[in-house]
Amino acid sequence: MLRDLGSRDEEFVALVADIRARLLQLTGADPAHYTAILMQGSGTFGVESVLGSTLAAEGKLLVAVNGAYGRRMVQMADVLQIPVVTVESGEEQPIEPAAIAHALQSDPAITHVAIVHCETTTGIFNPIEAVGQVVAESGKMGNLGQGDEVNRDGVNRVYIVDAMSSFGAVPIDLAASHIDYLLTSSNKCIEGVPGFAIVLARCAHLLTTSGYARSVSLDLLAQYQGLETTGQFRFTPPTHALLAFHQALLELEAEGGIEGRARRYQQNYALLCAGMDALGFRRYLAPQHQGYIITAFYYPKHPHFNFASFYAALSARGHLIYPGKLSQVDCFRVGHIGRIFTADVEALLAAIRATLAEMQVELPEARGG
Amino acid sequence: MLRDLGSRDEEFVALVADIRARLLQLTGADPAHYTAILMQGSGTFGVESVLGSTLAAEGKLLVAVNGAYGRRMVQMADVLQIPVVTVESGEEQPIEPAAIAHALQSDPAITHVAIVHCETTTGIFNPIEAVGQVVAESGKMGNLGQGDEVNRDGVNRVYIVDAMSSFGAVPIDLAASHIDYLLTSSNKCIEGVPGFAIVLARCAHLLTTSGYARSVSLDLLAQYQGLETTGQFRFTPPTHALLAFHQALLELEAEGGIEGRARRYQQNYALLCAGMDALGFRRYLAPQHQGYIITAFYYPKHPHFNFASFYAALSARGHLIYPGKLSQVDCFRVGHIGRIFTADVEALLAAIRATLAEMQVELPEARGG
Repeated sequence: MLRDLGSRDEEFVALVADIRARLLQLTGADPAHYTAILMQGSGTFGVESVLGSTLAAEGKLLVAVNGAYGRRMVQMADVLQIPVVTVESGEEQPIEPAAIAHALQSDPAITHVAIVHCETTTGIFNPIEAVGQVVAESGKMGNLGQGDEVNRDGVNRVYIVDAMSSFGAVPIDLAASHIDYLLTSSNKCIEGVPGFAIVLARCAHLLTTSGYARSVSLDLLAQYQGLETTGQFRFTPPTHALLAFHQALLELEAEGGIEGRARRYQQNYALLCAGMDALGFRRYLAPQHQGYIITAFYYPKHPHFNFASFYAALSARGHLIYPGKLSQVDCFRVGHIGRIFTADVEALLAAIRATLAEMQVELPEARGG
Repeated sequence: MLRDLGSRDEEFVALVADIRARLLQLTGADPAHYTAILMQGSGTFGVESVLGSTLAAEGKLLVAVNGAYGRRMVQMADVLQIPVVTVESGEEQPIEPAAIAHALQSDPAITHVAIVHCETTTGIFNPIEAVGQVVAESGKMGNLGQGDEVNRDGVNRVYIVDAMSSFGAVPIDLAASHIDYLLTSSNKCIEGVPGFAIVLARCAHLLTTSGYARSVSLDLLAQYQGLETTGQFRFTPPTHALLAFHQALLELEAEGGIEGRARRYQQNYALLCAGMDALGFRRYLAPQHQGYIITAFYYPKHPHFNFASFYAALSARGHLIYPGKLSQVDCFRVGHIGRIFTADVEALLAAIRATLAEMQVELPEARGG
């Protein structure tokens, strides 16, 4: 990251091409059908790039909502003046594929379906493969835009998966899940530094989207065409973040790819939950809905507990946790991803134990400790 | 840049606040009237953020065009469906303030005027102060949007200056130039690494723009409100690029601020031009229009000259120059900004001399060598 490469330099162009190829290899996506596009900004910029660039003016979006990131897609559609409907489940429930199927049957105008894979609001995993099946089976129907091609036997609804916090650590078969656009960012499970978003796109649909973009900066097709024709970004890329990302991809491969990384994060998750259970904390989600990316815990019901002090004390000990993001419930969250190993989780548990002792918070159900 | 700060961490929040304050101090802008907003992405993202967030639906934009970056603003307005007109000069001529005045008089519907300070297509400096005067004097007129307030005695046209490649090395008095929005990026004259754009905005206008934004990611007012209320970015910022930028600001201050940096770049410019003159190269712009940021040179008229070989040979010697960006004329460009000192310019001149000799290109007007 300390090298200062020119963004139009041969070496940098080769680095970007290698990153794009490795991203497809990572997930086993067929480069004849999928392409990797990098977009400056944060993950949110990537989501807006997909929503703003892949729906025709006549398009209509269905968003599956069970947390803040689903709601943000609805907000984007509103600002971009894209007609949008939602299928919602409670924040503690995964999206029901049957509810999506019902919505698609009853509204033929819907052209695109978007869902968040791991809703980090709670850490829930949504069933993206089953929902993809439903989208694919919903068949060709409705008032579709001129450019919307028929992309699988008679099926032409487009399926968008926000895999921001899961891609790189949760296996996703793009073709089997019927995914047209998958979103992630440089700084989640691939463990790069922040600076850009990543879109894995099915070329057959992407190439039909000419003229759809509602932004110059976030024009996904133009970004793709720039990367394909000259190998360069249209506008100055975060060169240092890309150098770091290339190294992060090599480290991910060295760890055994997505499966190797999944194993480490699952260990972090299991260890943290066992330790938190023992301390008497209660988890927000039922275990069968909980992913191994991030976990939400209820604030302990104890008069001495105060989240700001708890956070500050852990931070002072070198551990950063997350405040809650739930609409109704007081929770905090602990992430299991990043350059974190079981030794770090043990250290965090020790820090939580010490902090609770300092705060004189003893939890009724605590076992051992 | 090698530190991994959390983007919601206290230390990072303090760093961002300090960057914002120093940016205003740098140019002497009154913090009671101006604010500094940072926007993820490249400089272009910042330009689109201003165009897409500060015009009401009833707004109309005038863009002064004498190069690729002016044309890009027109393209953005088209994509954003903002009515747009242009005042154009040839690429070798600065924008005429009188032409802007005439356009504003004859089209009362124009609410916003945008201009590029240093058009790096050629390196020309446009007269942003005189144009600002014209915009301010054009008076309150026309079919203005509901939210457009009257911001100076009877004047309410909004003035946008793209100072991407000049800010930090060319003194700009925002108030005296009647600038409402000034754009720059992290990786030009401030010498940070790429990763974000910077907008200096006049608060009195910015605060009237609620509901104008045509994007969630690039919503300038929301970004400002996030930075003001929580001190945080709404969406993950490029933390490492911000750490680097803070250091870059300290180094700029140590060099004597904008004036100190201007002096060094002017020395680079003068030395390069003298050396290129001696080698027989001809400059595209008349000296009185030429800025000291980047200079365009005609390809030598010699049968052995080939730009691709010339570029590659210089690159192999450690010097990166720029291809031309002019519509009609074969030019290449040499930048004078960045961590470059007169010794680097001398080394570049020596490399050019050696490369010409290798290519067996002898220029008729060469003096000495």
